[in-house]
Amino acid sequence: MSTVQDTTPSGIDAAVAAAHAAADTMATASAGTRAALLRGLADALEGERGTLVPLADEETHLGPARLNGELDRTCFQLRGFAHQVLTGVPFAATDDAAVAGAPPAGRPRLTRVRVPVGPVAMFSASNFPFAFSVLGGDTAAALAAGCPVVVKAHPGHPALSRATAALASRVVSAQGLPAGVFAMVEGASVDVGVQLVRHPQIEAVAFTGSVRGGVALWKEANARPRPIPFYGELGSINPVVALPAAVAQHGTTLATTLAGSIALGCGQFCTSPGVLVVRDDDMSQAFVQQVGEALAAATPHAMLHPGIRSGFDAGVQRVQSHAGVRTLVAPPHGEGAPKGRLFATDAATFIADHALREEVFGPACLVVTVRSIEETVAVLRAVEGSLTVTLWGADDDTADNRTLVREAERIAGRVLFGGVPTGVAVTAAQQHGGPWPSSTQPFTTSVGYAAMDRFLRPVALQDAPQWLVDSSGLV
Amino acid sequence: MSTVQDTTPSGIDAAVAAAHAAADTMATASAGTRAALLRGLADALEGERGTLVPLADEETHLGPARLNGELDRTCFQLRGFAHQVLTGVPFAATDDAAVAGAPPAGRPRLTRVRVPVGPVAMFSASNFPFAFSVLGGDTAAALAAGCPVVVKAHPGHPALSRATAALASRVVSAQGLPAGVFAMVEGASVDVGVQLVRHPQIEAVAFTGSVRGGVALWKEANARPRPIPFYGELGSINPVVALPAAVAQHGTTLATTLAGSIALGCGQFCTSPGVLVVRDDDMSQAFVQQVGEALAAATPHAMLHPGIRSGFDAGVQRVQSHAGVRTLVAPPHGEGAPKGRLFATDAATFIADHALREEVFGPACLVVTVRSIEETVAVLRAVEGSLTVTLWGADDDTADNRTLVREAERIAGRVLFGGVPTGVAVTAAQQHGGPWPSSTQPFTTSVGYAAMDRFLRPVALQDAPQWLVDSSGLV
Repeated sequence: MSTVQDTTPSGIDAAVAAAHAAADTMATASAGTRAALLRGLADALEGERGTLVPLADEETHLGPARLNGELDRTCFQLRGFAHQVLTGVPFAATDDAAVAGAPPAGRPRLTRVRVPVGPVAMFSASNFPFAFSVLGGDTAAALAAGCPVVVKAHPGHPALSRATAALASRVVSAQGLPAGVFAMVEGASVDVGVQLVRHPQIEAVAFTGSVRGGVALWKEANARPRPIPFYGELGSINPVVALPAAVAQHGTTLATTLAGSIALGCGQFCTSPGVLVVRDDDMSQAFVQQVGEALAAATPHAMLHPGIRSGFDAGVQRVQSHAGVRTLVAPPHGEGAPKGRLFATDAATFIADHALREEVFGPACLVVTVRSIEETVAVLRAVEGSLTVTLWGADDDTADNRTLVREAERIAGRVLFGGVPTGVAVTAAQQHGGPWPSSTQPFTTSVGYAAMDRFLRPVALQDAPQWLVDSSGLV
Repeated sequence: MSTVQDTTPSGIDAAVAAAHAAADTMATASAGTRAALLRGLADALEGERGTLVPLADEETHLGPARLNGELDRTCFQLRGFAHQVLTGVPFAATDDAAVAGAPPAGRPRLTRVRVPVGPVAMFSASNFPFAFSVLGGDTAAALAAGCPVVVKAHPGHPALSRATAALASRVVSAQGLPAGVFAMVEGASVDVGVQLVRHPQIEAVAFTGSVRGGVALWKEANARPRPIPFYGELGSINPVVALPAAVAQHGTTLATTLAGSIALGCGQFCTSPGVLVVRDDDMSQAFVQQVGEALAAATPHAMLHPGIRSGFDAGVQRVQSHAGVRTLVAPPHGEGAPKGRLFATDAATFIADHALREEVFGPACLVVTVRSIEETVAVLRAVEGSLTVTLWGADDDTADNRTLVREAERIAGRVLFGGVPTGVAVTAAQQHGGPWPSSTQPFTTSVGYAAMDRFLRPVALQDAPQWLVDSSGLV
């Protein structure tokens, strides 16, 4: 396996300085130029699929099927952002004509445009070596918005990161753009990331990873002499509420579907369902039994790296040893790929102990049995912040369902009425970011085309000359 | 003068608890209900103008002309937000139809809605007793967005604040809304504000005031177990760049206009021009002379309160005693209303000393003479963050003007090509918020209709039942 060597402080300086030097070129790059870059990156990724996917598999153990699919997704979103740029999204302006007369009704002409913030530091994730890594969604969104990107490679897949970065630099060069449009730094220690976030010429940070790592870097961003936006997409426990209506109608199918979602990617998704909320009736408890059987039969692949595996084992141990928790599915401990785990508790225990609401990153789920809608609400409120909440069986317009929808919206960025939370579509309507601690900036998304908004700061031009209005204020 | 008594901790708890209890009602209130509330507040303010304006004048010394105009503006923006609500702005959704097939192209239906965050703590400003106070822009924006408001009154105008709050509560009650939709707390110490920001049921904070006070509360918001958005609109020095082209054509008029803007409201505006950047040619220096004469002739009214006055005197002293600063206009020190001050320095001195770039809240301006466009750029970069930058004489499409526009956009939320920065129109295109330290969240605005965005968090509904989509997800 390839080893990671920390980029030197002067190497980080050089990368950011080059990004800073390229910022004006990127900010004023036409839609055509930006789209060509994004499409060129997608084409190059596809062109090098034959070397990149095996490299990724060697470093992540995610398997060629998943990795090919993830590469497809990465190209899809690069091209999707290119399309957004060509339809003018980042260049859109609000133009309010002047109104004659005294204020408050009288006013000058005001044209609201959005200007690219400049160099973005992008922290790759371990669990998506393509889609949330070097040329993943954050990079695509930043380039679409007109911002150079300095990627902090994830130490879990250094060779793949280097190969992807080299590909990106070739595309940037072939398109005649300044080299500083894209750069990558690496490091296994926290120092490299901290230096990057502290760098005075970095203007925003996009991060996907753990709550602990994300909050530490968020504090660094806030502690700068000039704080900058830190868009952290952190951990999440993604409650799934299986209401009796759904269990009665589709219980068997849902049990298989849910177990598949828990085990998918060995549970290494920020949207992995970590909590299942069911009622205390016989049918719901039989459903839990079915989920357990399906999960016991699942054979997840190996985890990304030993650190994640030991974190999973520790999390399982924490839940398993809890006096108020019963173990439903617990395969013998062993080396290699972990098997799925299912635990059970009641609402009061879940609500009373914060430790039960911490993410266990891996194929584990805690069943919380509730006796009423009120207890369901209390369980959701205890979760506080989550990327998703899934409500199965809430399709009818009833008072109870409205209550549940309201509570789900209160704590989540995405509320599902069917399907499973794993799998995050790239669309304009997507919202991948929920209340703290699932995100540091829950008003923004890290997936979907609204992700560009994180890097476009509004500016109102007052009585601007027409040539400037015509260029959307970008000169 | 009315004295301020700190609201007790249990009083603050009760206010926030009532706001929390009213949150669902407000979140699901129809456009008609919200608009009626906003219009009812505007009507009541106008109805009580005869008592409110004299009360405001007694506490702020701003004079009836200004205060009547400010009350007009406050009503205008309440009604403007009502209109925005009626046209559906806070209820707008992005609806992406499902696409059959496998991901990444295949996808579920996703409907992106925005949900009101819940109780908003709103910190009134001293310098706008109506427009940025109890029923000012932040309150209007929060109510329009469907959020209850807990106002922290500014201790500079307690009697006016109480009268306005009483009026608001009467309107809320008359419209059959829960009392918790609006509440006010007060306190002269920082404790009340800190307790409010720390309260677990407060979901966002809007603040207008000093850098010191704002940053302290921003830190409190970030130090909560669950941090919340802190929208702070802080101090700003608002550079005005008078290019030779403008000075040659309109020098005399601009000098009068600028002096009027510096002295307006006794300089107690966040958009007051604190820096004038001019070239080293004779014409520009003669223009500075004209500005000085006009400023010396201006007769500002008294300052808001003795604390602001002593702050102004200290700021003036700091600039005046600087070895690299010449004093152009310095009336003798005296009691009562201060007179305008004009100082001068060169680019290198301005750039070298951070103290010269700190806001002097009051009628003072520092002239910075530059020898080139490059020095102008360097001066703007040294400013770092400002609510506004004004560029007089940058109307032609030249390379130099493009450079200046780019630099102005980099540091400001609003760039003016004519007029003066004081006076902030309430429109959809307005952006009142610039890079740090002028705002804590420069991607948002505290004036104009986009101010609602601060209180509406996006949520994606996946495969939502049609009744929920039809209600914009607000149930």
